[in-house]
Amino acid sequence: MTITGQSLIGATSVFGTQGAFHGVDARTGVALEPAFGGATQDDLERACALTDAAFDTFRETPLDTRARFLETIGEQIMAIGDALIERCMAETGLPRARLEGERARTVGQLRLFANVLRHGDFVDARIDPAQPDRKPMPRVDLRLRNVAIGPVAVFGASNFPLAFSVAGGDTASALAAGCPVIVKAHGAHPGTSELVGRAIQKAVQHCALPEGVFSLVFDSGLSMGQALVADARIKAVGFTGSRAGGVALMKIANARAEPVPVYAEMSSINPVVLLPHALTTRGATIAQQFAASLTLGAGQFCTNPGLVLAVDGDALRAFERAAADALAQSPASTMLTPGIHANYAKGVERLATHVDVEQLARGKTGGPFDAQAALFATPSQAFLADPALREEVFGPASLIVRCGDLDALHGVLKALEGQLTVAVHLHDDDRAACRALLPTLERKAGRILANGFGTGVEVGHAMVHGGPFPATSDARTTSVGSRAIERFLRPVSYQDLPDDLLPDALRDANPLALARRIDGTLHCEEHQDD
Amino acid sequence: MTITGQSLIGATSVFGTQGAFHGVDARTGVALEPAFGGATQDDLERACALTDAAFDTFRETPLDTRARFLETIGEQIMAIGDALIERCMAETGLPRARLEGERARTVGQLRLFANVLRHGDFVDARIDPAQPDRKPMPRVDLRLRNVAIGPVAVFGASNFPLAFSVAGGDTASALAAGCPVIVKAHGAHPGTSELVGRAIQKAVQHCALPEGVFSLVFDSGLSMGQALVADARIKAVGFTGSRAGGVALMKIANARAEPVPVYAEMSSINPVVLLPHALTTRGATIAQQFAASLTLGAGQFCTNPGLVLAVDGDALRAFERAAADALAQSPASTMLTPGIHANYAKGVERLATHVDVEQLARGKTGGPFDAQAALFATPSQAFLADPALREEVFGPASLIVRCGDLDALHGVLKALEGQLTVAVHLHDDDRAACRALLPTLERKAGRILANGFGTGVEVGHAMVHGGPFPATSDARTTSVGSRAIERFLRPVSYQDLPDDLLPDALRDANPLALARRIDGTLHCEEHQDD
Repeated sequence: MTITGQSLIGATSVFGTQGAFHGVDARTGVALEPAFGGATQDDLERACALTDAAFDTFRETPLDTRARFLETIGEQIMAIGDALIERCMAETGLPRARLEGERARTVGQLRLFANVLRHGDFVDARIDPAQPDRKPMPRVDLRLRNVAIGPVAVFGASNFPLAFSVAGGDTASALAAGCPVIVKAHGAHPGTSELVGRAIQKAVQHCALPEGVFSLVFDSGLSMGQALVADARIKAVGFTGSRAGGVALMKIANARAEPVPVYAEMSSINPVVLLPHALTTRGATIAQQFAASLTLGAGQFCTNPGLVLAVDGDALRAFERAAADALAQSPASTMLTPGIHANYAKGVERLATHVDVEQLARGKTGGPFDAQAALFATPSQAFLADPALREEVFGPASLIVRCGDLDALHGVLKALEGQLTVAVHLHDDDRAACRALLPTLERKAGRILANGFGTGVEVGHAMVHGGPFPATSDARTTSVGSRAIERFLRPVSYQDLPDDLLPDALRDANPLALARRIDGTLHCEEHQDD
Repeated sequence: MTITGQSLIGATSVFGTQGAFHGVDARTGVALEPAFGGATQDDLERACALTDAAFDTFRETPLDTRARFLETIGEQIMAIGDALIERCMAETGLPRARLEGERARTVGQLRLFANVLRHGDFVDARIDPAQPDRKPMPRVDLRLRNVAIGPVAVFGASNFPLAFSVAGGDTASALAAGCPVIVKAHGAHPGTSELVGRAIQKAVQHCALPEGVFSLVFDSGLSMGQALVADARIKAVGFTGSRAGGVALMKIANARAEPVPVYAEMSSINPVVLLPHALTTRGATIAQQFAASLTLGAGQFCTNPGLVLAVDGDALRAFERAAADALAQSPASTMLTPGIHANYAKGVERLATHVDVEQLARGKTGGPFDAQAALFATPSQAFLADPALREEVFGPASLIVRCGDLDALHGVLKALEGQLTVAVHLHDDDRAACRALLPTLERKAGRILANGFGTGVEVGHAMVHGGPFPATSDARTTSVGSRAIERFLRPVSYQDLPDDLLPDALRDANPLALARRIDGTLHCEEHQDD
């Protein structure tokens, strides 16, 4: 597959004429060939017209057809072969092993949603049968199913060029739900985006689906992405990126004549609580694990441990020294873009020069766009006094907050904004302390971990990758795992419709063999032996 | 029970000092005793502090305790006896039979959610067990449950003084979810509100729950309601009322440091499609049913049929005459408030004087605040040309849109905004025509009815009372039926937590005997025989 710099509008390709830009070698900052053409308003209009035209057909495709489509996308991604990994390494600076793993995850996510489709529970089929003899009023026949919410705009993420970009989690769950997708490629990895986009385009063709099921647009600035969110034919938005970016899209979506949901995953510092007995009994081990989690992928995971809370004392100071030693040995690694690197350097500088912040360690230096890890400490009073200390520094930097006692630590937790994850390290003797914190942790985060770190997000049925604002714009949903399909669905109820006009999911004969809720009780024998 | 005019702040009562107002006899416009004191900022602050303090305890009450609480509220409402019905009749102008029915529905809703709680499926308990030997990485133990979203602000509705007010649908589903509730009483039925509020206050006490589980505030203007939505301790908002009111609350909620969901049910004209063979074979019967639905409750149902679409011709004109005859005979009936009556009169006047609108009928006149039914017709071209013709006229007025053919009719449907309901009247020979419209109906409405009218909303498991904007602010949810509990929940995941620190719903021994999803497959034997 050759990279052409073209946007993919349905089945066609077009080199956009609204400005041009290049991918950049993350290690050197040198432009990569070819140039990418910024999509025009006309390109976008065509993509939106196609997505709207495809919607009614696509959302009613048989569940197995949609499952095969998702699997075919995975196959087409694998068929690109090493060219995808190599281009992605150049554009992102991420190492081969990470990207091969991320590709496997991307294909795995598509397969997970194929299974969700074959299982069919997401339809939430319900029947409240008529009761013609009910007094004082007969009861109507009422049936409910979930339908696709409409065409979805997906914004590729810089930090997951495969798993949260063109064929990433939002795209997989939206397509599974029956929503056509228009992806706005992230400018940090346009070549990777085009390669994956062409894989999806091929899958659409192989599965004989309407071309409008998928489009991919390159944006030479911000205007096309904004216009996409403002377009009346788009009914939901998926975004992973900065708080400023997510909030801007929320504003646009809320200002529309018809406001639509924005699922923005934005900003999280992922507090790590070190409880006293855990700190005393295995502080050094936790310090090693912490340093490894902090520097993983140059600290560019949404679940990176940017904050550590513990009661001050000898055990914490020993932890600090062990973590500082480990970080000082940690090699520098290339960040995703020169811009991200510059922001990281600024964030670290802000902490390093803060009057109440003590610098504990810096990692090794490296290339011009490599992140040098950083560890800081501050007293809880200072942390509470300055909201700027609670802001995310995207990269391998973390701040230890030294608390006077467990109550002070609890107070710090209560002052935090919403988070994707909170980790607690505890020993058997810390259970009472942990129990006291749990209600606050549940209020603050989408995922609570014991004796681990948030980096490493399982793609399963019980995963929540989400959390209260500003971790995400909508804590009622997750962007990872099978429940992510729910964000792109809405319920519709059918009253007294003749059987042959009902959707298959709700017909008397249950031709889809779905588990269905009859008068409130789930009848799931069909799938019990899966 | 005496009506005092006091706001109920937790277990206490306080006569607010920020202005005062009276309930009004809907029939006469005369003020009713006593005066109600507008809650102050201090009153609100105390209610919010109590709701926040109650949240962590209340959301973890055993499911059966919460179920008993809901049932106790119902019992306490019934215990008020006829005083409630009489006060409510005076304040709303609604007849006794309607209000006795509405009271039964209100108590029924509470019981429905008690059953939802005892069944426990809403917890959506999921376990992805650890796989320590998985390659290349061991899999962690991951468990998920839904938790209550936080304290909820509920705005009472004028048109359902019982079923969508103080102890109405939003209150019942929020309490069921484990969310404490602060109700802002609707100014149109303050006495009714206080009586029901005291019933809830008693139920809180009887069930030994934290007092902050429920408060009721009276607002002498708009400022307390707005302050409530802006308060950081409120995590979701339920509202039923005007489009302007709902949109105003959405704006406030979106402008918060932490934006929160607003569930506003606002504006719907509930199109009725009369397909050609249905019109030919039983137009006169449908006309009778239509007139009855239009004038039910003085046309003040959210699902009132404000729009009729049909292909023009002899059959439609016959339908128009039959509907006009029926409406001309329909007695006037009192509207909920003099203000609503004035707005209705304005809306009817706007249609009656529209250059492209023909007046077909007016109902009988009555008292000074009685609604006189009204029926109008207009050609589809005029309807499409003037968006003002698509605006809701709250009350017993409807507009027939005469379409040139079925394609034109479909075009009119496509031009409509989101709706709560769409009804289609069809004969066997209309099935193909109906099938062609269905994808559009699904895009536009939360409930699709065949051969009926949207008035009369079943409270069950398969009901969707919702729909795309502006019918509601959030089409992903319903305000009626058991799925309404979902709007007040968010998922939380627990990774590798020791069993004794897990919530009961997720412990290995399954002490709550919940149906749980293990590795994606639902194990529901515990409840199969319910």
